[in-house]
Amino acid sequence: MSKYNFDKIINRFKTDSIRWDHYDSSVIPLWVADMDFESPPCVLKAMKDRVDHGIFGYTHAPKDFKKSIADYVRKHYDWEVDPDWIVIIPSVVSALYSIGISCAKSTSHIITPQPIYHHLRLAAAESGRNFNEAQLETINNRQILSPKGLNEAVNNYYHQNSELLYFCNPHNPGGTVYKINELTKVVDFCNKNDLFICSDEIHAGMVLDDHKHIPIASISEEAANRTITLMSLNKTFNFPGAGLGWMICKNNNLRQLASHKIGTLIPYPEIFGYVATDAAIKDGEEWRLALLDYLTQNRKLLIEKINQIPGLRLYDIEASYLGWISCENLPVKNPHQLFIDYGVALQPGYMFNQSDHVRINIATPYSLLKEALDRMEKAVKSI
Amino acid sequence: MSKYNFDKIINRFKTDSIRWDHYDSSVIPLWVADMDFESPPCVLKAMKDRVDHGIFGYTHAPKDFKKSIADYVRKHYDWEVDPDWIVIIPSVVSALYSIGISCAKSTSHIITPQPIYHHLRLAAAESGRNFNEAQLETINNRQILSPKGLNEAVNNYYHQNSELLYFCNPHNPGGTVYKINELTKVVDFCNKNDLFICSDEIHAGMVLDDHKHIPIASISEEAANRTITLMSLNKTFNFPGAGLGWMICKNNNLRQLASHKIGTLIPYPEIFGYVATDAAIKDGEEWRLALLDYLTQNRKLLIEKINQIPGLRLYDIEASYLGWISCENLPVKNPHQLFIDYGVALQPGYMFNQSDHVRINIATPYSLLKEALDRMEKAVKSI
Repeated sequence: MSKYNFDKIINRFKTDSIRWDHYDSSVIPLWVADMDFESPPCVLKAMKDRVDHGIFGYTHAPKDFKKSIADYVRKHYDWEVDPDWIVIIPSVVSALYSIGISCAKSTSHIITPQPIYHHLRLAAAESGRNFNEAQLETINNRQILSPKGLNEAVNNYYHQNSELLYFCNPHNPGGTVYKINELTKVVDFCNKNDLFICSDEIHAGMVLDDHKHIPIASISEEAANRTITLMSLNKTFNFPGAGLGWMICKNNNLRQLASHKIGTLIPYPEIFGYVATDAAIKDGEEWRLALLDYLTQNRKLLIEKINQIPGLRLYDIEASYLGWISCENLPVKNPHQLFIDYGVALQPGYMFNQSDHVRINIATPYSLLKEALDRMEKAVKSI
Repeated sequence: MSKYNFDKIINRFKTDSIRWDHYDSSVIPLWVADMDFESPPCVLKAMKDRVDHGIFGYTHAPKDFKKSIADYVRKHYDWEVDPDWIVIIPSVVSALYSIGISCAKSTSHIITPQPIYHHLRLAAAESGRNFNEAQLETINNRQILSPKGLNEAVNNYYHQNSELLYFCNPHNPGGTVYKINELTKVVDFCNKNDLFICSDEIHAGMVLDDHKHIPIASISEEAANRTITLMSLNKTFNFPGAGLGWMICKNNNLRQLASHKIGTLIPYPEIFGYVATDAAIKDGEEWRLALLDYLTQNRKLLIEKINQIPGLRLYDIEASYLGWISCENLPVKNPHQLFIDYGVALQPGYMFNQSDHVRINIATPYSLLKEALDRMEKAVKSI
């Protein structure tokens, strides 16, 4: 057994949790993507020490922070990154929006995958640029962005001035981990069409089994030159309410455009984001591996239970704690509401532009997940 | 003597302080606007309790947060505000920039006071709109934005399509607290020229003596309808590295425009900003009054010393811990460098577009301030 206790039920009421406060307290909330586990002891200790100092003035990044990140990226993803390519950002979501307006010309066209975490689509929509969705292909129960979807998206836009592709790996929802040949096809498409890539890789730290996270920018010189990679430890170590992120971009011109508004329109990160991230980089690895074991066990339970429930189909989860469940074969119009009525709140599929699906968050103690899955079974049986 | 010990020297090295790390450690840094005092015990306790919980997921504002703010504003500034007029923001600086681009038409003209905290001028510049500076008038050793400066600024811009005035009260640098008749003239000007006002009131909590902070939006119905007020407790309670702010705007249309990008391009505030602000609102008042006493004592020392140094002139400090010192009569080109050479780092005047001035931050223990002022005296005598 792990020295970390992920089974512990921690009361998140009275902490202003968006996930826990939104529904009636009888509902098990498995929607918003944060975890019901404490951050690692090293993170808590670093935060506590910082509070004990007592002064919270204007704060720069810790000494050698970018070098630490470059070392982390090299060690975990076999990617050699110059610290000068790194820009610290307060939030990956914020960067998705700023890149749309700062890097793509106002007359350019944007491509987003579909289904996709809503902020990638909204970043395209809010930018004021035209955009099309590239439908993911489902192959062997994995959803991937393939040449088919990409070519349709670009060909459906008659102006032929696409400039930016939003990409997500590991994919959200569903957790597909792209293989090298799949990434190569995406990059080939972008080379051919002269697109730059904004790659959201926030779930890279939670790759399961023997899968391996490959940053798309790392696969070739051309990929590096046309990609802005967004990463963060907020998800892996569970401090999205007090964290930060970073961009990696080798292309100097693109990096300047992407980072221009940081410190002015977009605030610098706050103290606890630096403190938490720095501690997680330095001392969080043992905890992370224990977390992955726990998520693997929860995933096993999820697969067993979902396969017993007629009408539900779960895509392969290769990374993250976010399962994508097809309810296409359920004879209900609103599966999200069905599960709510039986006491489980999932992320509604319409947020990903696919309302006959739901996303489940399994980063919760095993016992609670089990209860939630029992309720989901009852819900489907009730139809 | 106060139960709070502001005399305590707290080592801020190794906390990644921008203020303390920038210069050689032999230099006393009185530039960046944060304080060398611990935040109030109520704030530290609230932060510590929050760390102890251990989970830092996505977090909404505390229950009744906007109502607490409305109550605070009513109690402290005699201003009756509907909680619905309040929008929580991660940073006042960020809001200055977003208001420029979201509220003023791209062809409109902006007016900023001069001298002014650099982010107000930069927000105008970065917006891509044309802008002019309205020179403050100095009357009885107080710098104020008067009809003279405003009329010159608007008349110097021949398109006559000014739409936005950036305003700052208490003023930074210098700490002028505007009187009701002075505010009335500003509002009359804005009515006549149909300008809306973005009023940075971040130092409102640190008004000294018998001065009183009057929010410009509070003086009339017309003022309320054309003003976005920006406030925060970050300065007063010393957590600018982990805080948040709020806008107050009665005008529904203006408020929608001003808040449109929050939660997308501009991140939501982080957990510790909510926790610290909530605690300061509820239990920080006794500490705040003790702080004002301490700053008043430091200001007394500052006035005495500066008046002994030939060639320096201090404007009246009616609020804040930021003194504005004219070095016009010093026979040196770069007063900022002169003081650095003698071991005191002040905020250089060129950041406020007036390089023959410097800004001094007196929010430091008395003994350190005394040492710094002695060094400044030596510096001037050396000429």
